[in-house]
Amino acid sequence: METVNLSEKLALFSEFWQPRIVGELNGQQVKLAKLKGEFVWHHHAAEDELFLVLSGRLELHLRDRIVELEAGEFFIVPRGVEHKPVAAEEVHVMLLEPASTLNTGNVSDQRTLSELERI
Amino acid sequence: METVNLSEKLALFSEFWQPRIVGELNGQQVKLAKLKGEFVWHHHAAEDELFLVLSGRLELHLRDRIVELEAGEFFIVPRGVEHKPVAAEEVHVMLLEPASTLNTGNVSDQRTLSELERI
Repeated sequence: METVNLSEKLALFSEFWQPRIVGELNGQQVKLAKLKGEFVWHHHAAEDELFLVLSGRLELHLRDRIVELEAGEFFIVPRGVEHKPVAAEEVHVMLLEPASTLNTGNVSDQRTLSELERI
Repeated sequence: METVNLSEKLALFSEFWQPRIVGELNGQQVKLAKLKGEFVWHHHAAEDELFLVLSGRLELHLRDRIVELEAGEFFIVPRGVEHKPVAAEEVHVMLLEPASTLNTGNVSDQRTLSELERI
């Protein structure tokens, strides 16, 4: 039961594509991440995933279109839908997803994180 | 599957203490609300509730302390914990909680809403 200041938490790390856990409720986790560059195409078989952009501009590539998100906008990627986050410049996002969610979903690659840090 | 712009959604309503549903994922709902004045003391027996302040300043009164939240800060009220939101001036918040959550929790009063509008 602590107040979470998003800017203060974001100042605690600099690595891209390595979400940190900043809150948990009802089996869901609130995460913060810094993104830059292209991530891998993946999906989450049983988990819907919310991306809320806090700063910068994020492209969520879907197989049939590209969703562009700016600060103050969110998008929910439904379970099973393939997506690839792309950030031309650094983007800060808040993620909301079940505690079981793996960052690379169905794909295993060098960026897969089996455990996330709580900050 | 639509992009949600928080400012645009907030411009669609003006009533205080009447959250609108703007997203659903994993059995949870994302809501936006405008708060001003004092709400009722209540708790949610089985639901954790996240308050993220988007603008303004919110006081979350708990029985043993007052949590002060500014824009860019969130607080998770665990299930069972009595709380009373207080906003001296207008506050805009994003809420995250299970779809089953009633705004006044265990209390039934004139501000209890049995159904929320989706916008």
